[in-house]
Amino acid sequence: MKPTVRILTHRDIENIHQCTLDILSRTGVVFNSPKAVEVFRKHGAAVEGRKVLLPEATVEAYRKTVPPHFVLHGRDQNKDAVIGQGSTVCAPACGPVYVQEGETGKREGTSQDYLNFVKLTHQSDFLDINGDGILYPNDIPPQLFHRFVMLTTIRHSDKPLMGLTNGTQVSRECIEMARIAMEGREDNILMGMANVNSPLYYDEGMADGIIEYARWKQPIGIACCGMAGFTAPVTMAGMLAVNNAEIMAGIILSQLVNPGNPVIYGNTSTVASMKTMELALGAPETALLVTASAQLAKYYGMPFRSGGGLTGAAANNIQAGYESMMNLFATYLSETDFVLHAAGILDNFTAISYEKFILDEEMGRMIKHYMKGVEVNTDTLAYETIHEVGPCGNYLVADHTVDHFRSELWEPRLTSQKDSADIAEAARSACRKRLEQYIPPELKEETEKKLADYYDKE
Amino acid sequence: MKPTVRILTHRDIENIHQCTLDILSRTGVVFNSPKAVEVFRKHGAAVEGRKVLLPEATVEAYRKTVPPHFVLHGRDQNKDAVIGQGSTVCAPACGPVYVQEGETGKREGTSQDYLNFVKLTHQSDFLDINGDGILYPNDIPPQLFHRFVMLTTIRHSDKPLMGLTNGTQVSRECIEMARIAMEGREDNILMGMANVNSPLYYDEGMADGIIEYARWKQPIGIACCGMAGFTAPVTMAGMLAVNNAEIMAGIILSQLVNPGNPVIYGNTSTVASMKTMELALGAPETALLVTASAQLAKYYGMPFRSGGGLTGAAANNIQAGYESMMNLFATYLSETDFVLHAAGILDNFTAISYEKFILDEEMGRMIKHYMKGVEVNTDTLAYETIHEVGPCGNYLVADHTVDHFRSELWEPRLTSQKDSADIAEAARSACRKRLEQYIPPELKEETEKKLADYYDKE
Repeated sequence: MKPTVRILTHRDIENIHQCTLDILSRTGVVFNSPKAVEVFRKHGAAVEGRKVLLPEATVEAYRKTVPPHFVLHGRDQNKDAVIGQGSTVCAPACGPVYVQEGETGKREGTSQDYLNFVKLTHQSDFLDINGDGILYPNDIPPQLFHRFVMLTTIRHSDKPLMGLTNGTQVSRECIEMARIAMEGREDNILMGMANVNSPLYYDEGMADGIIEYARWKQPIGIACCGMAGFTAPVTMAGMLAVNNAEIMAGIILSQLVNPGNPVIYGNTSTVASMKTMELALGAPETALLVTASAQLAKYYGMPFRSGGGLTGAAANNIQAGYESMMNLFATYLSETDFVLHAAGILDNFTAISYEKFILDEEMGRMIKHYMKGVEVNTDTLAYETIHEVGPCGNYLVADHTVDHFRSELWEPRLTSQKDSADIAEAARSACRKRLEQYIPPELKEETEKKLADYYDKE
Repeated sequence: MKPTVRILTHRDIENIHQCTLDILSRTGVVFNSPKAVEVFRKHGAAVEGRKVLLPEATVEAYRKTVPPHFVLHGRDQNKDAVIGQGSTVCAPACGPVYVQEGETGKREGTSQDYLNFVKLTHQSDFLDINGDGILYPNDIPPQLFHRFVMLTTIRHSDKPLMGLTNGTQVSRECIEMARIAMEGREDNILMGMANVNSPLYYDEGMADGIIEYARWKQPIGIACCGMAGFTAPVTMAGMLAVNNAEIMAGIILSQLVNPGNPVIYGNTSTVASMKTMELALGAPETALLVTASAQLAKYYGMPFRSGGGLTGAAANNIQAGYESMMNLFATYLSETDFVLHAAGILDNFTAISYEKFILDEEMGRMIKHYMKGVEVNTDTLAYETIHEVGPCGNYLVADHTVDHFRSELWEPRLTSQKDSADIAEAARSACRKRLEQYIPPELKEETEKKLADYYDKE
């Protein structure tokens, strides 16, 4: 029996939903995009400048066209990711500009780091999806970054891909490069991730990105990252209502462009320290919001994204351990369908760490073992063995132990019972070893050439 | 709505219960105590040497006399602990002989350390119960340790007490000292904690301790700490069945001595590394067993003990963070009634750490904030505020934020968003400060004199 957590009652959810409808129809959402405003206007929304007021009927009708699950195809079809059907699909960190490494501390990330993390993600048995802004390197011109992401990820991984979403052109180029890579397969081959600016504001890039992904029948995640007391009400309920409204507005936009387009309902909101006004990603409110917003997404029957190995800690210390575990555990227990930042993220989203990447995989493997629960049947109850061994006996040499220990017990890769002070060094060493053993997946020479040409085109 | 986790179905639980009845009636439990064997014999159990075979009818009848909840009284009646009525009652580490401290590393603990931890526990707003083997100091003769525990804890704390349970005399002396301290109150003033040796074996001290606590109407926790594949089947289901049988045998003993005596159903079993044969307390199986055994205790309607800030890490590193959080979070989510080792424990039960003590309190406060869930009502939904602030607005100066932030947001004491590399030093510093600020609770001079005389008696 799979363990799950819930914190909202059905009535709580309905109250939040009702408040959401009020926000959407009376308070409105600003889309700083003429294209998006036009889409809404055409479908009967009231428009005041760039503020869109969505009638309840439109919200109710178009939230229902969202598919409850979808497949994101990989170059290797065996690695296709099914999102929304009960498994937790994971992707690495997204957004950091710094690399936190061992004793050398924090430094700006480079394209070599980006490549390393694409390789590590490709090799990972914990991560299912590759690409996007795993890291923003300091040696790639920003206007070429999206092409660099696509070229590097396709060259070095055959897992399903994420692309960038900031604006029509960037989105379209990412999709075109994915099409080259996928050699004929066209739909559901690249997932975008668009962010709302809380409260209730979409900038032009994100709104146009949503439109472009939907036009090309590509899945897109729509997520907010509010801070209670700053960009959202300080009360969790109010924050959930604002978040729900702003996420829903983006989702409705995607459905107006292409009804039935795969989308993910996303929420990575948290709080800020009221003393320092800094993001406090490791605070327990983050986990609370994961669980509560998961319930909202499930109420709507939409795939849900949230959580990850999130921490406010600036180094791989005990705080990074307890915050990341709290958030990642809550992510799984809340039945999250897709997890960005599942590995490597540190320091309130600003840094990626090689050690943390490996250690988050270990945490993820621990949680997945817990999630399997306990199998109870005649064989696992083992009464005959219990009777044979009897009181004061030893199970070490029992056939039952020999037959079952491999399948039953979790096997640590790094976690040590002996000299665990060295765990960061163990992670560094595991990381180096993996990169040495990296084998690139096959890619047709012709396809690679087309991609390289695309990268170089005007 | 309080979040809870479950992993066993009702049918799983009934299958484990049935297997338990078979173990108790056909395989048996060894009690290396003539007194205990005599109690069982008198009540119709079949006895083979020191092996006791418990008929199903006896188990079914006497498991039902266990009260579903009880009060453990403190010297300060405002600190009485109610165990088994929905709140999670916590106590510090138990059993370690080493102290892990800052850069100096691991050393043997002293009576001064014991005193420090009693003071820290007294001051803690996370810990509810004081005393017992928080630490086994190297400068107190073992035969006087129980008197030292009682004298030191009573002198320096007015929270409810735990005493030692190894044998009739030690148990009785602890109870007598508690009676002196409680000045007239007699029942439910000292809680014992007895351990089974898995599989299915009670040594004389523990069996006689159970009898003595029950005779004197004092609550007693009965717990096992099996290791899958060594002292229990390697399969979790089989382990739960053996554990359940051995715990139940101790509980039935207490009820045969004094039907209705308060007891706690306890399980802190885990796995061992199949490579090194060492305990692996931080493995995910520990959390799995917390959740599953909580369900068994609840099936029987008995208060449940398990979990804590458990880790196999030898230092306060990232592993200590993620393992402790996984276990403590699962402990709360499983609705554990009483938690030994809630703060300070490190290195597979062998060490107590000042820093970890303070950091476990922080983790506990995070988890308790999550457990409160989200309050959804008109005030917390804050629609009027949302409408006023509108899209792109800022909530920082809203009255709603000012009115709610103190009650709504978790406040970190140590966790830093800025320079979290220093968290261990922050914990050390908080610990020093607390000990400097310690104020002893009142204790009548006459009572103190009686206790000191008791300590010195032959």
